[in-house]
Amino acid sequence: MFATLVNGVAVSDAAHAVSVDERGLSYGDGVFETMRVQAGRVRLIERHMARLRAGCERLGIAPPTEMHLRSDIAALIHGHHDGVIKLIVTRGAGGRGYRPLTTLSSTRIAIMYPPIATPSQPGITVRWCNTRLARNSQLAGIKHLNRLEQVMAQSEWSDQQIAEGLMLDTEGELICATSSNLFLVTDGVLATPDLRFSGVRGVMRDEVIKLALCDGITVEERPLRPEDLLNAAEAFITNAVRGIRPIVALDSQRWPIGALTLSLDSSLAKSPN
Amino acid sequence: MFATLVNGVAVSDAAHAVSVDERGLSYGDGVFETMRVQAGRVRLIERHMARLRAGCERLGIAPPTEMHLRSDIAALIHGHHDGVIKLIVTRGAGGRGYRPLTTLSSTRIAIMYPPIATPSQPGITVRWCNTRLARNSQLAGIKHLNRLEQVMAQSEWSDQQIAEGLMLDTEGELICATSSNLFLVTDGVLATPDLRFSGVRGVMRDEVIKLALCDGITVEERPLRPEDLLNAAEAFITNAVRGIRPIVALDSQRWPIGALTLSLDSSLAKSPN
Repeated sequence: MFATLVNGVAVSDAAHAVSVDERGLSYGDGVFETMRVQAGRVRLIERHMARLRAGCERLGIAPPTEMHLRSDIAALIHGHHDGVIKLIVTRGAGGRGYRPLTTLSSTRIAIMYPPIATPSQPGITVRWCNTRLARNSQLAGIKHLNRLEQVMAQSEWSDQQIAEGLMLDTEGELICATSSNLFLVTDGVLATPDLRFSGVRGVMRDEVIKLALCDGITVEERPLRPEDLLNAAEAFITNAVRGIRPIVALDSQRWPIGALTLSLDSSLAKSPN
Repeated sequence: MFATLVNGVAVSDAAHAVSVDERGLSYGDGVFETMRVQAGRVRLIERHMARLRAGCERLGIAPPTEMHLRSDIAALIHGHHDGVIKLIVTRGAGGRGYRPLTTLSSTRIAIMYPPIATPSQPGITVRWCNTRLARNSQLAGIKHLNRLEQVMAQSEWSDQQIAEGLMLDTEGELICATSSNLFLVTDGVLATPDLRFSGVRGVMRDEVIKLALCDGITVEERPLRPEDLLNAAEAFITNAVRGIRPIVALDSQRWPIGALTLSLDSSLAKSPN
């Protein structure tokens, strides 16, 4: 990593920067954002700020001020053109047991990483994960720190030709990839899981939905099943760091990189956000 | 807290002891144990060690050696008669993204806390929690660090007369209290939720089941519903730190502290573990 700030202060020793009492460590009691820095600025920053705030609100965590967060981001970006910034906001350090003390001040951790490697080809191969997502509408959609399901899912494969793993929930609904949202194109309609019970409402997901609507494309947020993917004409995944990635292979099935996927990718490239 | 060890080394500054890259913080990627120290030793230590090991195994985390863990415990207990020790084992610090690097060494954190306050009366009042437990058999039973549901449940009340909150899963099954397991007595039979989809397999739960079986009591581990509690003759909760606590009140319902509960509590007091 390039640099780390904890509550706005640059840490000289990132290996000794966090309290043993930190509720993010004890219980995964917090939220995070992973943001792409491109040409010296964070892409989709308004959406990242809004989701972080919404996550804190859902969990009853006092959110850091946006001024503090933006000041952290500015300090980390200084002198860097490209990279990835991770923001973690936890309920704070202290207390004993699960009960969240109302007197805690939230902890904010901001980390700047080097840019990710550019993929060698645009289309990706995906696989099915055996790990299922549990259903809990109370925690669905926000990007909280309870991520064991995603960790377990990513531990299922090591083949570097497989870029992502698709995840079902415990009832068999198709929800997402381990760190990406999923979109399908069928008869010219763009469909994506509604995430009412699980999954993360990705900032890139919401941006792509907006771009699609602006381009006059019908968008459906609804429950999807594995067969919806198998029957789709085009499929792609999205996340904030990697943008739109077309799915071209899953087991023996192959998809072309379709016209609608290419058109959305082009709209995204032109978008000022 | 009295003292803290990270990977066996006493930390002079517990507020700056853990890496920002710690996967326990990033994803709740680890397990923990909360253990009662009484008369200079950890109660149910074999069960705690076994559950920690089983949790690491389930998550694919290389467990610390038992020698290391017992050495941490011995160092923390030194000079203390009573208290609570919390052990946290995470997958380690490092890596980028959910994928667990196989090269990581697990991190172990051991914290000694003062003893808990002795309750003023043996019977407790409980309430229903609105927060539901998600169902995921892959993570059920182990004491992992993804505990947002318990945090949210405990944030539902502040009345100190309420000692615990009872939790249902998303399908309406009665699973546990926020930090305790639940037992019901009906027609002389002891029943406790089977925890096949959610909840933590408490070390005190398993000890109570063993004691009951030794006392010739029929024990059923099975799905329970709220009405099973309402129809029960006796009800109590258990955890490693507080032992057996009889439930005497829930909303308008009252229970006596029953004969079977008292008998199990007496067996527990006599148990050498």
